[in-house]
Amino acid sequence: LPSIITLTTDFGLKDFYVGAVKGVILGVNPHASVVDISHSLSAGDIMEGAFVMAGACPYFPSGAVHVGVVDPGVGTSRRGVIVETRRGFFVGPDNGLLSLAAEKTGIRRVFEITKSDFCRVDVSATFHGRDIFGPVAAYLTLGIPPEKIGLEIRDFFMISLPEPTFDGAVISGEILHVDTYGNLISNIKAGDLEESLGVCDVEVTIKGRSIKGLYRTYGDIPEAGAGALMGSSGFMEAAAREANAAKMLGIGVGEKVRIVKI
Amino acid sequence: LPSIITLTTDFGLKDFYVGAVKGVILGVNPHASVVDISHSLSAGDIMEGAFVMAGACPYFPSGAVHVGVVDPGVGTSRRGVIVETRRGFFVGPDNGLLSLAAEKTGIRRVFEITKSDFCRVDVSATFHGRDIFGPVAAYLTLGIPPEKIGLEIRDFFMISLPEPTFDGAVISGEILHVDTYGNLISNIKAGDLEESLGVCDVEVTIKGRSIKGLYRTYGDIPEAGAGALMGSSGFMEAAAREANAAKMLGIGVGEKVRIVKI
Amino acid sequence: LPSIITLTTDFGLKDFYVGAVKGVILGVNPHASVVDISHSLSAGDIMEGAFVMAGACPYFPSGAVHVGVVDPGVGTSRRGVIVETRRGFFVGPDNGLLSLAAEKTGIRRVFEITKSDFCRVDVSATFHGRDIFGPVAAYLTLGIPPEKIGLEIRDFFMISLPEPTFDGAVISGEILHVDTYGNLISNIKAGDLEESLGVCDVEVTIKGRSIKGLYRTYGDIPEAGAGALMGSSGFMEAAAREANAAKMLGIGVGEKVRIVKI
Repeated sequence: LPSIITLTTDFGLKDFYVGAVKGVILGVNPHASVVDISHSLSAGDIMEGAFVMAGACPYFPSGAVHVGVVDPGVGTSRRGVIVETRRGFFVGPDNGLLSLAAEKTGIRRVFEITKSDFCRVDVSATFHGRDIFGPVAAYLTLGIPPEKIGLEIRDFFMISLPEPTFDGAVISGEILHVDTYGNLISNIKAGDLEESLGVCDVEVTIKGRSIKGLYRTYGDIPEAGAGALMGSSGFMEAAAREANAAKMLGIGVGEKVRIVKI
Repeated sequence: LPSIITLTTDFGLKDFYVGAVKGVILGVNPHASVVDISHSLSAGDIMEGAFVMAGACPYFPSGAVHVGVVDPGVGTSRRGVIVETRRGFFVGPDNGLLSLAAEKTGIRRVFEITKSDFCRVDVSATFHGRDIFGPVAAYLTLGIPPEKIGLEIRDFFMISLPEPTFDGAVISGEILHVDTYGNLISNIKAGDLEESLGVCDVEVTIKGRSIKGLYRTYGDIPEAGAGALMGSSGFMEAAAREANAAKMLGIGVGEKVRIVKI
Repeated sequence: LPSIITLTTDFGLKDFYVGAVKGVILGVNPHASVVDISHSLSAGDIMEGAFVMAGACPYFPSGAVHVGVVDPGVGTSRRGVIVETRRGFFVGPDNGLLSLAAEKTGIRRVFEITKSDFCRVDVSATFHGRDIFGPVAAYLTLGIPPEKIGLEIRDFFMISLPEPTFDGAVISGEILHVDTYGNLISNIKAGDLEESLGVCDVEVTIKGRSIKGLYRTYGDIPEAGAGALMGSSGFMEAAAREANAAKMLGIGVGEKVRIVKI
């Protein structure tokens, strides 16, 4: 089977950073298939990176190696890790970036990267994507077992999404992510809603604005209106009909959301 | 021959959407080579997507499968389709997005996607790129014939570019696309111009501004000036010398263009 | 070994240009692995493109073919070239774009592309990426030797980065590049600094602002402060702790930098 290595970073698209990582990977394993997930994450935003990796990486076939680099602590005492899961490996800084996606795919063991044999000869203090994570990922696809690259650890750093709270007919959550279309993705899961509320007749309140109705798809929202729906990420989102809800409502990540049955 | 699957979407580059589609495709066919055409189309802009697919997809080798997703009607009654052409397949919503590129490569048969066997088990109402079009494209590269995935239809939705009009020595058209450089690409083809006007001495009028001369290439336009030329898309475009004509002239898609022989 | 072709361009991500080049390459060699380095270079900025190619291309394995297209003079008398180096080929316009990366990888011979047999049948005057450089790169990966595609030349156009000047304990340089994070990358190399100054106690002055201290990594810069460090490109850069130094200091490419020992 071909060796798949995915990349999710905040490197941006106009620098040499993405290209250097790809070059190093292909230098170690020229047969690897390097797949871009995103390089446009907000600089240093670990939570956003974790959300994107969790939404994309689990769909890849078993054996894929997922490199994540949102790494404001590069070169400091934060560790570099390999996470072995039931469906493949994750490689990157031990700052929580990999943790949501790794958890979703079933963590088996976690290793701190300690052996320089599988890194570039001159490891810089500022670009571990190129000098450590890229080459380590490539060596994993060549069949080097993670225990040859590092030491098993038990205190892998996990982050978790904020959890909604439930008070009778009221669910209180927050906006986790604003997507390209301006859809406001909350931390309220389909299951949360079904358990505590009827699905159809809900009123969503965000920043003093009230949105009525839970729709099946974007095209069902009334013209020039806004509505809630269960998005493809498994979370409730608020969207506007053929418009950018985030801009329309002036709402960003972290905004509180309240749902009541009506 | 390797299986090539191209992607042209309005998913943007900071979300998990592109990665999820790639993951699903590689889950079905790990040997597929997934090629990004664009993920930065304007949200919901079917005409722009159709223009970009028509400019890129016909250059790929025979047998390539082209996935297009600009899909404001996802989950509604709009159909998902497979278009079989003389040079490969197109997969996406039946909203016109695929139609210009498919027509250019010679449409043979069109199928509505009806068999859920070739889709993900849980098809969402909001992300058919991941749940239907991605996996269907991957199954096509595995040799599953389109008639096993859907039913042939005769009413594939075609869009067409606006046509210029001719009145003696005057051609009237409009701006179809503004590219990265700010070049203003019109709907007037090289053939239109040659048939009705002499090629060299033309005056192009856009938004009250007059541009004189048809140049062979960007570098032939006089310093600090603007000019018309026959662009690589086969259409007449207006460009500025080492500058952004769209910003300089304040012009966008849909603006009327008038050409007269001088 | 697989055929790797990298692309570094100013085509942007919303047009058909990138897709058309990839399609033409895969049409000539369907087994090629086409790798994006960047398509978001500033339009027509040859120096930026040369800097990015020099930072990325040398990491790729031997035999890779690197296509660069920042080509404001397309279709004019500027030549198209193939540069044969110790580690692979570079293909693009002879305007300096390829020169820094080619020099780093050891130039052997340079050829002007003269044979139309390895170009598209209809070469446009405005899109040599699609019509000449893409197909030529693909033919090189098929083993066509460069001397069959062009004629050897001796006057390949080289650009060079501006060099810093040294005056006792003062080094004067300038900002070469502002990266995605807002880090200000100068033309002062690690070696320059070590030779003429002690490494630890330096004061960097940019645009009247003074930054004290040379740090090992971004996370070592004091909270809410700015500092200098030796970046992964081998050049000294000025950075802000978890912030965008370029925006914070209002500084862009070309700004003068002065370093003194303190």
